[in-house]
Amino acid sequence: MPVRFTDLAGIRAALADLPQPDAAALAGASARNAQLTKPPASLGRLEELAIWYAGWRSEARPAMRAPLVCLFAGNHGVAARGVSAFPPEVTAQMVGNFEAGGAAINQLAGAFGARLSVTPLSLESPTADFTQGPAMSEAEVVEAFATGWAAVDPAADLLVTGEMGIGNTTAAAALSAALFGGGGEAWVGRGTGVDDAGLARKREVVDAGLAAHAGALDDPLEVLRRLGGRELAAMAGAILAARHHRIPVILDGFICCASAAVLAKAAPGALEHCVAGHSGAEAAHARLLEALGLTALLDLELRLGEGSGAALAIGVLKGALACHSGMATFAEAGVSAG
Amino acid sequence: MPVRFTDLAGIRAALADLPQPDAAALAGASARNAQLTKPPASLGRLEELAIWYAGWRSEARPAMRAPLVCLFAGNHGVAARGVSAFPPEVTAQMVGNFEAGGAAINQLAGAFGARLSVTPLSLESPTADFTQGPAMSEAEVVEAFATGWAAVDPAADLLVTGEMGIGNTTAAAALSAALFGGGGEAWVGRGTGVDDAGLARKREVVDAGLAAHAGALDDPLEVLRRLGGRELAAMAGAILAARHHRIPVILDGFICCASAAVLAKAAPGALEHCVAGHSGAEAAHARLLEALGLTALLDLELRLGEGSGAALAIGVLKGALACHSGMATFAEAGVSAG
Repeated sequence: MPVRFTDLAGIRAALADLPQPDAAALAGASARNAQLTKPPASLGRLEELAIWYAGWRSEARPAMRAPLVCLFAGNHGVAARGVSAFPPEVTAQMVGNFEAGGAAINQLAGAFGARLSVTPLSLESPTADFTQGPAMSEAEVVEAFATGWAAVDPAADLLVTGEMGIGNTTAAAALSAALFGGGGEAWVGRGTGVDDAGLARKREVVDAGLAAHAGALDDPLEVLRRLGGRELAAMAGAILAARHHRIPVILDGFICCASAAVLAKAAPGALEHCVAGHSGAEAAHARLLEALGLTALLDLELRLGEGSGAALAIGVLKGALACHSGMATFAEAGVSAG
Repeated sequence: MPVRFTDLAGIRAALADLPQPDAAALAGASARNAQLTKPPASLGRLEELAIWYAGWRSEARPAMRAPLVCLFAGNHGVAARGVSAFPPEVTAQMVGNFEAGGAAINQLAGAFGARLSVTPLSLESPTADFTQGPAMSEAEVVEAFATGWAAVDPAADLLVTGEMGIGNTTAAAALSAALFGGGGEAWVGRGTGVDDAGLARKREVVDAGLAAHAGALDDPLEVLRRLGGRELAAMAGAILAARHHRIPVILDGFICCASAAVLAKAAPGALEHCVAGHSGAEAAHARLLEALGLTALLDLELRLGEGSGAALAIGVLKGALACHSGMATFAEAGVSAG
């Protein structure tokens, strides 16, 4: 596959040619799981996680050695409409914090042995206000998508995508509404913590965006271009790159899942290499996970973004793989299988 | 406090003299949390976890360096009544597996950097069948409790207690019923995987145990002696020792929580140094957590025991402490606080 795209047609081609999990590795991992020294199914979701990971990595007894967190930051024209509790300059300030190692995602990536890459996307040029026209030109959305794709090291064996962008829960709500129906009322929450007036403004902005682009929202990639943002396009590119590199993905919160939803709507099955890391406190996240048919691993009331909930779920996957690949079988341990 | 007990009165004395969290550390940790580079409360339950840990460790910015998993194994007279999908000899076989490093808990302890201690408790002498009389004499329950207490290294800074014992979900159901009301119907589940006939037998055994000891179940320690088992008494001893050493505890599944419930019923507030690691697939576990007023960190459909769910939750605590103690403040990072 190309690692640079020149137009949306290139992205469509990548979506039309999705690698599938390795059937032999899936079968081998299932057979191994059945022989481990525990009652059948007693490790619950850890068992399905390990087998899923085995299928994508083509190893019946896999190890995870190189988890990667790719963080993308973008600025949004709609931020000027008072949809966030924080001013737009915080996006760049937080990029500085990520680069200096001071943010939550730095600590979580470190705690679970993941490498962190940080990619600011033209922060000096916010996307256009989507209530007035498309957020991005085709060239802009393709560039952001390609940047996300290129950020994924093919040698990684797990990907988490995270984001930072003042105003981006508003963009994620608009994307979700356009992809799954419902308006601002259904998909807008408090984000980083807007007050009641801010919440009302966010809903109005989402509804105004949907109205401004009515009739042009049938194509998921066009929804991304018109209502999304650079970090959302980059996350979609990174998640699709991971599929082509056979790298399993842990999805983060509402904004990450809105990006992923673009892929899911554009190509059925496009998220089979993904699990939902957590269900966040932003109410629309649970709604979006349900629309995507995903059940989160964690529910700890996080609403930070940055990839934080997904990074925490790396620990769950680490535990699942440690059990799957490290445990003795009944025969090896001389334990009666019941 | 004594580390050896000669009678139940010694245990009662330890329950009457419970250390409390450090108010200054709690205040310092809360103040620090409010200054970290994130929207207020956006790390959800990670924030309360870190502050709770800080209070017990008397440090506003704590680190966790020495987590300990104490695993206890015991055999049960009621196992002869066909209440398990596995034969009683599996208890000793699994102790061999723990010692050889082949069980799930070995992998999970390793994945999260915890030391594992394994304590088999008189496996060659199962407790008495509690439908016929008390499971243990006072000397036996005190010895098991004291062994659990002594297994806790005072230098540990986190404790997980785990268990192995064919038949012990039956004992845990009987304990729970005696402490909180309801009979076998309310508290008995499939454990490691009994069939319908086995499930019916478990319920009958629990109801027969409650009937055999009717009128003698007002005192929680007496409930433990009559209906419990050595590994349940040892876990209770370990959890109480942790309180006296100011070591926070992550509780595991149904059996661990039934042990902890004895302490909670004997002394209000006795579990304030504990969090619930997970809500297991054994349905009575959720009921017991509710009775104890605890909300689990994880819900991954585990039903293995061994401390496995709690060990997995060490990862969540590790993430919480990494954020709390490692993140930059708004002032340090030069980020606008909104």
